Amino acid sequence: MSGKQVVNIGIIGLGSRTETLLFSILQMSDVKIAAICDLKQERIDKILEILSGKVDTPGVYRNYRELLDDPEVEAVFIPTSWNSHLQIARDSMKKGKYAAIEVGGASSIEELWQLVHASEETRVSCMMLENCCYGRDELLVLNMVRQGLFGELIYCECGYEHYLGKEMAEEYLSGLERCRHNLRRNGDLYLTHGLGPVAKILNINRGNRFLSVSSHATKARGFSLAVKKHANMEGVRFNEGDIITTIIRCANGENITITHGVSLPRPYTRNCRIQGTNGIWLENAGGIYIEGISPCVEKRDPSGSISETHEWSPVESFYEKYDHPIWKKYKDKVASGRRGYDILTIEAFIDSVRNRTETPINVYDCAAWMSITTLSEQSVALGGAPVPCPDFTNGKWIYTAAKNTSFWSLDEVK
Amino acid sequence: MSGKQVVNIGIIGLGSRTETLLFSILQMSDVKIAAICDLKQERIDKILEILSGKVDTPGVYRNYRELLDDPEVEAVFIPTSWNSHLQIARDSMKKGKYAAIEVGGASSIEELWQLVHASEETRVSCMMLENCCYGRDELLVLNMVRQGLFGELIYCECGYEHYLGKEMAEEYLSGLERCRHNLRRNGDLYLTHGLGPVAKILNINRGNRFLSVSSHATKARGFSLAVKKHANMEGVRFNEGDIITTIIRCANGENITITHGVSLPRPYTRNCRIQGTNGIWLENAGGIYIEGISPCVEKRDPSGSISETHEWSPVESFYEKYDHPIWKKYKDKVASGRRGYDILTIEAFIDSVRNRTETPINVYDCAAWMSITTLSEQSVALGGAPVPCPDFTNGKWIYTAAKNTSFWSLDEVK
Repeated sequence: MSGKQVVNIGIIGLGSRTETLLFSILQMSDVKIAAICDLKQERIDKILEILSGKVDTPGVYRNYRELLDDPEVEAVFIPTSWNSHLQIARDSMKKGKYAAIEVGGASSIEELWQLVHASEETRVSCMMLENCCYGRDELLVLNMVRQGLFGELIYCECGYEHYLGKEMAEEYLSGLERCRHNLRRNGDLYLTHGLGPVAKILNINRGNRFLSVSSHATKARGFSLAVKKHANMEGVRFNEGDIITTIIRCANGENITITHGVSLPRPYTRNCRIQGTNGIWLENAGGIYIEGISPCVEKRDPSGSISETHEWSPVESFYEKYDHPIWKKYKDKVASGRRGYDILTIEAFIDSVRNRTETPINVYDCAAWMSITTLSEQSVALGGAPVPCPDFTNGKWIYTAAKNTSFWSLDEVK
Repeated sequence: MSGKQVVNIGIIGLGSRTETLLFSILQMSDVKIAAICDLKQERIDKILEILSGKVDTPGVYRNYRELLDDPEVEAVFIPTSWNSHLQIARDSMKKGKYAAIEVGGASSIEELWQLVHASEETRVSCMMLENCCYGRDELLVLNMVRQGLFGELIYCECGYEHYLGKEMAEEYLSGLERCRHNLRRNGDLYLTHGLGPVAKILNINRGNRFLSVSSHATKARGFSLAVKKHANMEGVRFNEGDIITTIIRCANGENITITHGVSLPRPYTRNCRIQGTNGIWLENAGGIYIEGISPCVEKRDPSGSISETHEWSPVESFYEKYDHPIWKKYKDKVASGRRGYDILTIEAFIDSVRNRTETPINVYDCAAWMSITTLSEQSVALGGAPVPCPDFTNGKWIYTAAKNTSFWSLDEVK
């Protein structure tokens, strides 16, 4: 239908995320599911049932190394656990296959170096499927930043604030991975939904880089209360602080503040703020202020002194003029919300596999973003003392221009 | 008119803040301006002109020590510069006179110890006139917190984000104090508008205290651009980073994140966030979420998974039921906005003088709040490393109950 060459993929790990990925993949005529893999037969059966009648039956594996040896498979999706996907991605690249991993943070700096080395040795790419990089507002602001409307960038905020009390109580009973991490660790465990788009906007690994991390945890109360309320179990203690505040210092003098909060009841936000010398986007206010465009009223108070009052413009008021070309190109064919982001993300990965080019989110991005979780834990353990960020590019960030490598180069999407 | 005994005050420092203070003081029939003092004759003349025909002519002094020796003066207002008001407040207390200082940060920890010692030696109180402690929303949330609606408090944010580009360009030309501090220092120079109300809500110095400070500065660009634009001078460099992010760790396990930003164009905010195990106020969203009161909708997405969507209630929807008694008591007689806050603040100070009681914002509050500026500078200088907060109460915070000493004790205002 699209006239593009079909890309043969394998999927390793057939949990619930695979089902939502399939929702998007099955809409794409240029992708063939050549092989699937899981340790558990019931998961394999469930996915085969979903695929039945829609596509040719894929090869089935229980051992992911055997799937990686399947010559038909060109690229693998790896929606497995936080503790296994980096190792599988490394092994995939070593077999010459592009790897798509899900979001999450690393457990050690070492597993990220292994990922980087595998990609450098084989010249095969690893992409995190961070769909929030393809959010409409994130792309809008990136486009406006590239056009100079925000001036020189100075400061950013982002985060993941999403109350998961009920979910965590269920996961406590079923022993699911995410809950175990929250029980044992203390740091920003889930930050790429916010940090990914911000890192792209700040050109991280392309003329800029993360320098240091300082991270701060509050006491932990929320999940204990949720487990008591929803699972009727008293006295369960989580190590993860309710709110984790992390500050990243960047080479070009910008700071990024990240807030992680999933255990206290509140409305959802990714807490985005992008601020430069000429403008600011504040997700929580639903507004953008651009000097010279947004309202600025001069007021005189009763005592006679003059002050300026600056007012937000609604984010939506910029859509028509500044929607990103990627969003404009795809908006007619994608559904709204998360699945829309998913399709843009997966298409970007598949296009890179087909063309044997670097993925727009590359192995250095994966390493830099995921390392912040590990570094956050370290800094929390040190009472908030800053810890240094490794340079996973070994100096290549100094010479890499944003324009030539980023998906968001405006030239590329014309 | 009020039937209360008149309190005789002196005013030291007759700049523009004195004019706005007089706007409130002249409405109060139980306050007599007994003496005024300034180094400059033109300022004295200006204030005398404002007072002329309204009140009896006060005693006039050029040397503040002479005003402090005036036996008629019971208490002094000290709206002088950041570098002089702490010394004058110390000397006032040593002469047995209550001292009211303006907002601002300290330059050293030592000048705060001197302030504390003067108060402890004479049993005379020093109050910072932090009018934002008397803001309607701040008092509303304090009242709701005291009634348990927020659950156990976990995390707070506050700040001062107010674009002062034009003002700073003018001050650069006239050599005004605030500009000089921004030229030379790098830390959170102006934080009590946000931190004062938060400290009251968290019962700082009354069963809780500030433990450590970690502070982070971005590069400095905004004021340099403002001076170029508004004063036509190129290449003026300010040391103050455009955005300062400061995290305070508290003894009871809460963290406070403070944002200072006065050099980049944007709408005004004090950036308040008060979050507990059962609810959150977020000023920038204009909303409060309280579990069990605010909307929570269960949604099923196309793949069948269930998620909860929590929605903000407008702050205004809580006014009728939860407005603080202080606000209810005063709202009919005060004007709206800042001057309304001013009257509440000044009346609290005057009442304490009349009754010879501790001021609701006392010398320990002044020292703790103002020390954060100094500690922020230290931490910025150390690349964000946490620095410890002195305990200005020397352990008294452990034994001081919030109920017995705070202005906001609900019993007191009935």
